[in-house]
Amino acid sequence: MAVSKIEIRSGAYYDSVILMQLQRALTGLPGVIDAGAVMGTEANKHILEQSDLFPDEGQSAGVDDLLIVVKAESEQLAADALGKVDELLVRRSTSVDQEYLPKSLSTAVEMAPEAHWVLVSVPGRYADGVARNALDLGKNVFLYSDNVTLEDEISLKQEANEKGLLVMGPDCGTAIVNGVGLGFANQVRRGPIGLVAASGTGLQAVSVRIHQLGSGLTHALGTGGRDLKAEVNALTTRQGIDLLNRDPSTKVIVVISKPPSPEVAKSIIQHARQFDKPVVVNFIGYAAATRQVENVYLASSFDDAARLAVDLATKPREDQAAIDLNTAGFKGGQVYLRGLFSGGTLAYETLLILQELVPGVYSNVPLSEEYRLPDSMVSQGHSIVDLGEDEFTVGRLHPMMDNDLRIRRLEQEAEDPEVAVILLDVVLGHGAHPDPASELAPAITAAIQSAEKGKSKLDVVAVVVGTDEDPQDMQGQVDQLEAAGARVFTVNAEAARYVGQLVSALSGGTQQPGGKPVDLAMLNDPLSAINVGLESFAESLTVQEAAVIHVDWKPPAGGNEQLMSILERMKAK
Amino acid sequence: MAVSKIEIRSGAYYDSVILMQLQRALTGLPGVIDAGAVMGTEANKHILEQSDLFPDEGQSAGVDDLLIVVKAESEQLAADALGKVDELLVRRSTSVDQEYLPKSLSTAVEMAPEAHWVLVSVPGRYADGVARNALDLGKNVFLYSDNVTLEDEISLKQEANEKGLLVMGPDCGTAIVNGVGLGFANQVRRGPIGLVAASGTGLQAVSVRIHQLGSGLTHALGTGGRDLKAEVNALTTRQGIDLLNRDPSTKVIVVISKPPSPEVAKSIIQHARQFDKPVVVNFIGYAAATRQVENVYLASSFDDAARLAVDLATKPREDQAAIDLNTAGFKGGQVYLRGLFSGGTLAYETLLILQELVPGVYSNVPLSEEYRLPDSMVSQGHSIVDLGEDEFTVGRLHPMMDNDLRIRRLEQEAEDPEVAVILLDVVLGHGAHPDPASELAPAITAAIQSAEKGKSKLDVVAVVVGTDEDPQDMQGQVDQLEAAGARVFTVNAEAARYVGQLVSALSGGTQQPGGKPVDLAMLNDPLSAINVGLESFAESLTVQEAAVIHVDWKPPAGGNEQLMSILERMKAK
Repeated sequence: MAVSKIEIRSGAYYDSVILMQLQRALTGLPGVIDAGAVMGTEANKHILEQSDLFPDEGQSAGVDDLLIVVKAESEQLAADALGKVDELLVRRSTSVDQEYLPKSLSTAVEMAPEAHWVLVSVPGRYADGVARNALDLGKNVFLYSDNVTLEDEISLKQEANEKGLLVMGPDCGTAIVNGVGLGFANQVRRGPIGLVAASGTGLQAVSVRIHQLGSGLTHALGTGGRDLKAEVNALTTRQGIDLLNRDPSTKVIVVISKPPSPEVAKSIIQHARQFDKPVVVNFIGYAAATRQVENVYLASSFDDAARLAVDLATKPREDQAAIDLNTAGFKGGQVYLRGLFSGGTLAYETLLILQELVPGVYSNVPLSEEYRLPDSMVSQGHSIVDLGEDEFTVGRLHPMMDNDLRIRRLEQEAEDPEVAVILLDVVLGHGAHPDPASELAPAITAAIQSAEKGKSKLDVVAVVVGTDEDPQDMQGQVDQLEAAGARVFTVNAEAARYVGQLVSALSGGTQQPGGKPVDLAMLNDPLSAINVGLESFAESLTVQEAAVIHVDWKPPAGGNEQLMSILERMKAK
Repeated sequence: MAVSKIEIRSGAYYDSVILMQLQRALTGLPGVIDAGAVMGTEANKHILEQSDLFPDEGQSAGVDDLLIVVKAESEQLAADALGKVDELLVRRSTSVDQEYLPKSLSTAVEMAPEAHWVLVSVPGRYADGVARNALDLGKNVFLYSDNVTLEDEISLKQEANEKGLLVMGPDCGTAIVNGVGLGFANQVRRGPIGLVAASGTGLQAVSVRIHQLGSGLTHALGTGGRDLKAEVNALTTRQGIDLLNRDPSTKVIVVISKPPSPEVAKSIIQHARQFDKPVVVNFIGYAAATRQVENVYLASSFDDAARLAVDLATKPREDQAAIDLNTAGFKGGQVYLRGLFSGGTLAYETLLILQELVPGVYSNVPLSEEYRLPDSMVSQGHSIVDLGEDEFTVGRLHPMMDNDLRIRRLEQEAEDPEVAVILLDVVLGHGAHPDPASELAPAITAAIQSAEKGKSKLDVVAVVVGTDEDPQDMQGQVDQLEAAGARVFTVNAEAARYVGQLVSALSGGTQQPGGKPVDLAMLNDPLSAINVGLESFAESLTVQEAAVIHVDWKPPAGGNEQLMSILERMKAK
């Protein structure tokens, strides 16, 4: 009958590779059926339990305790196996081919002062200290470790940004710098495409696909999964795309992430729009309502992102012309957009497009409830109102037939000194008003003239939805509206992008955080790195013929929390 | 000084066109500055108030009361204007050019038995009755009216579905049948593209864009904005795409809607996949993670939908090959998918793709919190587990390096008699396990053989993410996994689609509601219609040279609610 025996070693630190090797070695011993060697977290206990490897004595173990369990054919064989643990731990050979293993990062930096990079893969609770040490020594950090707090991440990235250094991570599984993979990375052809990715396997999936499609990469920079959270404010992503924009070999930039906060998404798209290079953005699972904003392309999947990037790198691209925005003439404080729609779905599409340009648009048909207008009759901030909603049409004709309500609302909005732009849709066709422009045009002229009397400016933008065969004479409608002073579009999405960019510019555009630019040499010098943590990452660099110094890192006080806190208190005195 | 005077007419019904005309006529009278003529809803009172047209006496008016307000230069002039109201209401000329105006729908049907369509645009509270009457007379309904309850909509559509009739609406603003626009519709070129749209201006925006791009439409069918709600179950949308699929002139089908419930989205995509025709789906604002599922194309905007449809209508298309699913050999009740991922974003992309095929997939990284696994260590239903999440990696190597946890979990899942398919990712590259297939393959073989011993089947699907230059020898990895019995993909999205379609088929696919097919003649016979409600819709049909009978409809008991309920009670006796 199988017997399980457990040994608990309190406050002992061993790295994960050592534990995996110990577990395997134990499983290979005579009479051993199965074995486990893990730290005593709840998840690990649960996993042992499910493998029928968790004697009751293990219950008391805590997060800092090492659990070693052996299931063997007899009590004696299990005890024999546990008796070999120390021997097996010692027997483990290091596979790093390095004459002298420095014990500290600073010694390693003395050995390889030219190294731009420090790879950190120590357990999460030590990672912040090692990364901070690396920044102090003027090195860029590839921070593979997970279980790092958000506060530490923000503080590390802010420090790096001030010093002109990059912190990729935490939980950054992968990157490719100058053709050399850091952490997990596929061997991908060199080529004209540069990536910045918050997601590890997203980066791998897109880089593999680019390779499969026959193209290749300059660099692929990881940022860690939380970089695009509002609190972190995409510090590393911004540094990354800025680097790739300055890198002469990179022709196309690809940005990959899970959907970020709307504020951050907007900010990144605005940042990318300032570049001359095409930028493919894939916020996977993000509901984009447009495929392109000037030089920025919004991809819907990894495959789509890779195809777009390869196409853009090989074919002459058709960027949308940058929109010529005339922000002159508006008064300070004149910043708001008011959209008065007759078409519900046109209002909705406009809201979707605006979310990448102007977050926080109020509506009676809002994208999220927090931006529902408390009173549909009264706008606030940026507002998009659907005047065809049920609330407006009881005993009243639809605004496509009856312009009265829209004209009254237009006057009301124009009187608001904070309003800069009014957006209207004019839907033509059978059933609609036979000549809407004849009623709207005088109201538009009056609104613009009234603003001019107040020494300010009012832009009125109209999107005319119709065909040249519609009964209203589409060109005639456009002419009347233009003569009244409106800027006219015939595609709703184009009108939405125009007004979004205009009010975004009026409110000062997006504030991009400052900081010192990162030196391009860290990307384009032959890769040289210092590795702290998993030996396999050093081995992998050696295989790729990159220079690496592995540090023989041990946690302070051997990982004993109590001792560590005593040492900390002694240092503080 | 301007003076406002109000007159309240209790329980009087006038249609919206009459009220608009009355208001305009009043505004044109001598000394009148502004006027309003609206039913006494809160919204309408509010609007009058904002136009400074709401004397205090109006406060007491209710929803069934007509408010007539005149603001004039003097008390006398205001009173004079109000004194003309009756005369103005009578003077209103009908513009329908029709010798005899029938008073009832049944008389109209006797006059035009060939009419397939009844257009209903009476006020919401009467619309259900008129539409039901039309169905009883065997007619299809274009239901423009809004403010119809969801319960009435469901009941009308179910009745129509059983009778092989179509109810487009309620709140269906637009449709084009055989080249003739109903309600609001642009004059669009005839062509090879058929639309089904839940959104009115969405339909108009896409049809206009198709025209602008040089192509045209067969038919454009509206469904009303609530058709894709789970409760309505897309009854009209299904009938519409089924009709267009059978219509020989339609070469490409386009479906337009705001994002539906995931269950309905899945169901529509599954329905469309059975067709031979290409189907472009634009759930505007829906986060699709794929651009194509076989013959179904997911567009991201109106413009995108129009371009895709025009391209598909003109160029030979490259549909993805239909996947050959082998569902034989599984036992009844073997229906679940279990995904065991090392790559977090691959897991996430898989969840995104599955949502269109298999709603309700549990995960430790779920798309919505309601599908969070209560315990990451234990799967339930369809589950996708990211084994690289922080909870699994404390004191344990990442699953890209250490296969132990994955192999244990694979055994556990394979023992579950309800599991049909296990999905694994195998991420190659520097830093990853040097030969993952060598460890995974035996476990896969064991799992499949164990299922076979139990006289059932187990499919194992592996997606290998890597390049031909990766250190693991990609082809060798694929060969090992295939030899072990796994089906191998090299693009994650393809693997996700395959397993999604397989488990969808195992659970019996999507139940499509039954019902009688709608006769194609209602689309392709020359359009003939009966119009109940807004006269302008009848005029618009006449302009388009379509046959129309306008009904001189009046609400029962003149719109007096009290009288109506007495009549109803008398009928019931």
